[in-house]
Amino acid sequence: MTIKETARSMKLASPKMAATSGDDRNRALKAISDALIKNKDEIFKANALDLENAAKDNISQAVVKRLKFDEGKLNGVIEGIANLINLPDPVGKIMMARELDEGLTLKRVSCPIGVIGVIFEARPDALVQISSLCIKSGNCAILKGGKETVNTNTALFEIIKNSIVEAGLPSDCLFKAEQHNEIDELLKCDKDVDLLIPRGSNAFVQYIMNNTKIPVMGHADGVCHVYVDKAADYDKAIKIIVDAKTQYTAACNAAETLLVAKDIASDFLPKAAVALKDAGVALRGNADVLSFVEVEEMGDDEYNKEYLDLIMSVKIVDDVTEAVSHINRFGSHHTDAIITEDRDTAEYFMNMVDSAGVYQNASTRFADGFRYGFGAEVGISTSKLHARGPVGLEGLMTYKYKLYGTGQIVDDYANGTAQFHFRDIDC
Amino acid sequence: MTIKETARSMKLASPKMAATSGDDRNRALKAISDALIKNKDEIFKANALDLENAAKDNISQAVVKRLKFDEGKLNGVIEGIANLINLPDPVGKIMMARELDEGLTLKRVSCPIGVIGVIFEARPDALVQISSLCIKSGNCAILKGGKETVNTNTALFEIIKNSIVEAGLPSDCLFKAEQHNEIDELLKCDKDVDLLIPRGSNAFVQYIMNNTKIPVMGHADGVCHVYVDKAADYDKAIKIIVDAKTQYTAACNAAETLLVAKDIASDFLPKAAVALKDAGVALRGNADVLSFVEVEEMGDDEYNKEYLDLIMSVKIVDDVTEAVSHINRFGSHHTDAIITEDRDTAEYFMNMVDSAGVYQNASTRFADGFRYGFGAEVGISTSKLHARGPVGLEGLMTYKYKLYGTGQIVDDYANGTAQFHFRDIDC
Repeated sequence: MTIKETARSMKLASPKMAATSGDDRNRALKAISDALIKNKDEIFKANALDLENAAKDNISQAVVKRLKFDEGKLNGVIEGIANLINLPDPVGKIMMARELDEGLTLKRVSCPIGVIGVIFEARPDALVQISSLCIKSGNCAILKGGKETVNTNTALFEIIKNSIVEAGLPSDCLFKAEQHNEIDELLKCDKDVDLLIPRGSNAFVQYIMNNTKIPVMGHADGVCHVYVDKAADYDKAIKIIVDAKTQYTAACNAAETLLVAKDIASDFLPKAAVALKDAGVALRGNADVLSFVEVEEMGDDEYNKEYLDLIMSVKIVDDVTEAVSHINRFGSHHTDAIITEDRDTAEYFMNMVDSAGVYQNASTRFADGFRYGFGAEVGISTSKLHARGPVGLEGLMTYKYKLYGTGQIVDDYANGTAQFHFRDIDC
Repeated sequence: MTIKETARSMKLASPKMAATSGDDRNRALKAISDALIKNKDEIFKANALDLENAAKDNISQAVVKRLKFDEGKLNGVIEGIANLINLPDPVGKIMMARELDEGLTLKRVSCPIGVIGVIFEARPDALVQISSLCIKSGNCAILKGGKETVNTNTALFEIIKNSIVEAGLPSDCLFKAEQHNEIDELLKCDKDVDLLIPRGSNAFVQYIMNNTKIPVMGHADGVCHVYVDKAADYDKAIKIIVDAKTQYTAACNAAETLLVAKDIASDFLPKAAVALKDAGVALRGNADVLSFVEVEEMGDDEYNKEYLDLIMSVKIVDDVTEAVSHINRFGSHHTDAIITEDRDTAEYFMNMVDSAGVYQNASTRFADGFRYGFGAEVGISTSKLHARGPVGLEGLMTYKYKLYGTGQIVDDYANGTAQFHFRDIDC
């Protein structure tokens, strides 16, 4: 079957998956977890093969680190599955119930989105994680991993597939695409694939977003800011800037730009520069900044840079108003923080900055589903539709309206024979 | 300014609109309503000009009916604005509040989406309606109407624009595009326009959906079904089928296909055919149907037809299972009804049909924001992301996460110095 045919048949079968019980889906998750532990040696062996090939192909160390699937990564996915099992069933929640009229009741009920396409680069743990999220949420999924991890992925997928069939879920709820050209085929399945989740480098995500009509959940850039206001507590500010920049530089929620209010620049900036340089961070700034601290000079049009490295742009701004307009212009609407003890200034910043996360006196690195207490993370979205910011299981859900009538027709309401009374009832 | 420049500057200005108070936005709505009444003669004069031009250009009667803006249409939009004013402010609602740790509080707060592009064919009332919805929800909007209503739209837009400026809202929150080529320019503004709402024919909406990377709220097709189960009450069934087909044939929620369970076909179908023919409906069906009633013969592959007219496809199906698979295959995931007295069969149908609305014993014509009690309707969506089915004001909203800290950094939580305690608090 081509991917197009697979997607069509999966779409038509998806209501069966949606109709499975939460217990069945949890049982499948438990079976996957058990089977992963039982077959770990086989998985590690497959992974060793991928690592060997990577060595032959001179693949970069960063990629090798991601494609390695060891005891630590296994424990991570096992813990993730255990978390998922403990989360309440997201399917079939009654979100609204309203009597429109006597004997005419409307319910809004949560249900799975349907068919999710997942495309990821070299990260075998992502295959397990995303499959588990789709199973928990009653969705079907077409998975496409990178060729660097083909052996690990094949081993993992077989274990997952056997476990779900054993647990009684529809066997066609998960499909692993094998060929690289299948990515482009998948991107064209906008009639049957309801949502795409790409996991990988920015360039990769950008490619997906630019080449499909299917809605994409994710984000390409993460240009996050920390603005230090004139009413900032310097100690908090420095601790937060260093954390936001250095705690994990490769993350999308790492800060890339430091904005400092001009009133405190001469006092604060040299202190911040020392702390950042001590943490190994190289600073860059425009001509303004050079008059306060020694940094590598940069142009005013470079403030949209995402370094994902121990490098940070610095800019002096007049006040919170200029900070806001700089962030809205150069940022990526991801997560931005203000450091200030002034409540009103903070509220102004948090209302006016057009980002998924707006923080007062906290590190941008908190932008994460687990740190928000969601229990599971589907990803982080910089889209404003459907789901924004860190996305939990609810990002994989939609809803339908169920209307229970007793023979009602619209004409009676149009000609005045009947009237709606709209009475919300208990869910 | 080009549309691209307008969109960019509107995007950057949109947080100002988002920060206006609900009272200010309601005052603007009241001012618009008052000004429309005060200036109605001027509006009607402009509309007469458009109607004159339509007559000269031999424009179809269906379009003329839509472009006419008379006392009745005016009353409709005035009533719509009054409804909107009475709805609670959708901006700034705290949807979730959670203490992540001592002194670290996360809030999910509703906010406007930002910049909405609205493109509509010949319906001046849509201009007022959509502008009002955008104002109520704190969004900015770029409006593009059809050339057939240029005079009416210009008169209406001037009144709206003057009213919002008078009421103190940002003057650049609304912009009316004038040139036809600006539609294609607008479709390319995916960096700055957050959402497109097209209003018009299916072909028009389809064109928009196929030619932009901006998310589109709406639907192209409305192929709705009524399935009459073997456990149906015939009287209810016939009343509902006639209403669903004939109450307003041009609507997307009008039924196009009648499915009948084979066990009752010989008994029920002739009765239904009489009632439908009495209501002026021409029936079409495949060879199976011909053995029960006289209908125009059609092929099995034509069951995806949306007639929007007094024509209905008929098909005999084995049972509810075949009804479900027919609907999922040929339908448009809009609204589908089952007529049955059997609760279990109804639940099966409502769970398995993959549509925004699934009804038991009620007409598909109920699929409408006002009939659902939303007070205002943005449109009907057949997308599964963001908003599905009839969409009220909430379809124009997104949310942001506000995190209030007191100096917290992620490293403390990563190295075990600090622990999250995740405690939901009152909103």
